[in-house]
Amino acid sequence: MDKIFEILINRRTIRKYSEKDVDDALLNKILAAGIRASTTGNMQVYSIIVTRDDEIKKQLLPLHFNQKMVTEAPVLLTFCADFNRFNKWCRMRKAEPGYDNFLSFLTAAIDALLVAQTVCIAAESSGLGICYLGTTTYMAHKIIEVLKLPEGVVPVTTITLGWPAEIPEQVDRLPLDAVIHHETYHDYSAEDIDRIYLEKEQRADSLQYIKENNKETLAQVFTDVRYKKEDNVYFSRMLLKVLEEQGFMNQ
Amino acid sequence: MDKIFEILINRRTIRKYSEKDVDDALLNKILAAGIRASTTGNMQVYSIIVTRDDEIKKQLLPLHFNQKMVTEAPVLLTFCADFNRFNKWCRMRKAEPGYDNFLSFLTAAIDALLVAQTVCIAAESSGLGICYLGTTTYMAHKIIEVLKLPEGVVPVTTITLGWPAEIPEQVDRLPLDAVIHHETYHDYSAEDIDRIYLEKEQRADSLQYIKENNKETLAQVFTDVRYKKEDNVYFSRMLLKVLEEQGFMNQ
Repeated sequence: MDKIFEILINRRTIRKYSEKDVDDALLNKILAAGIRASTTGNMQVYSIIVTRDDEIKKQLLPLHFNQKMVTEAPVLLTFCADFNRFNKWCRMRKAEPGYDNFLSFLTAAIDALLVAQTVCIAAESSGLGICYLGTTTYMAHKIIEVLKLPEGVVPVTTITLGWPAEIPEQVDRLPLDAVIHHETYHDYSAEDIDRIYLEKEQRADSLQYIKENNKETLAQVFTDVRYKKEDNVYFSRMLLKVLEEQGFMNQ
Repeated sequence: MDKIFEILINRRTIRKYSEKDVDDALLNKILAAGIRASTTGNMQVYSIIVTRDDEIKKQLLPLHFNQKMVTEAPVLLTFCADFNRFNKWCRMRKAEPGYDNFLSFLTAAIDALLVAQTVCIAAESSGLGICYLGTTTYMAHKIIEVLKLPEGVVPVTTITLGWPAEIPEQVDRLPLDAVIHHETYHDYSAEDIDRIYLEKEQRADSLQYIKENNKETLAQVFTDVRYKKEDNVYFSRMLLKVLEEQGFMNQ
């Protein structure tokens, strides 16, 4: 099965798409493969919102921090943790659901993410390109309004999907042994950290990145520019409020 | 690329494994494919614990509710949200990390889950079988002790991995249109719910299941036997405590 490994190992995130549409037959084939992913107790506690409409994409654009792929990609897929459907079924069948708690949210989020990644791999193996939008958890409170998500439903990630109009350089990864632990967790010494991050820190793109941002180290680009504490704290509060409002914090 | 679709669409969760080991070369090839999965800002805020040791498996067995695969599978992989490594790197590079909040936990959990599912697909395409253990989020507080996970690290899912010793029947899924919404969420009417769950409710295995559990409806098997409110509430509290103790609730 080396073709699959080739696809998994050579993959690149695609942010520029050609104008060619993704037809419904292909999209449905990909989504049908996606829903074969493992799901807790075969409950399938997720939903996928397919967005093709330009007007709705325009409303989502600022919520995804104006990343151009949102309006340029032919298809957006928003993957949601969804206990609404399951709860409705229970109530119609003389069963009282007890899924209005944090554990159930995480269960449903896991379901949604396993489907999302399966959809991505099916799409990439069809020659399509994808990009994950991390902004979904930041702006869940606003995405809920645009996509009209009812109680019991929380968006956890979004992907843009389309035919690639670029073949970008493949980004780096830490050495495999940096993320693997045998039997139990082996905490990192200062020497380990130096070794693990050496290649990343010496890359030309990293050095360029530090310079452009007027920083001293690559880590400072993350902490002071890209993923700042004040933003994280603000969006954390909003996200916890979303979980409460969508009915997942009643424990 | 129809071979990949065939694998994705025909997959089955495997709970019985042959005694044949999974050799390190194959496992590393699978893990190396896994870490090419998308990751927020290329931070790779996850870790994978590989457990082969019988003694550690025995300690994990009750934490996974004595599911036999835990000791019978040659390999267990526990996927963790992990900001510990990244935070250490930041602190060694004159950068103050602001990742001790709920948003950062979810970011890291998403990273871990996208890798987990990629690992599963790479494994299945190699002829191996996997089973996800949802018990990981229930018993995170105890798994943390056994696997010695430091602050900044939370287990989010576990898979058992090995060569299949069974070809089980494939389980059902809801019709594709039951989980897909076009443009915005279209909430379910009573007729929709009846239609969506019709096939599942009429299956022989579902009827058997209702009978075995002395229940009136399939939904009651979920709410009264498999995923009970009182358990969910208890494990929710434990999980929120874990997030606090592991340093993800400082907002």
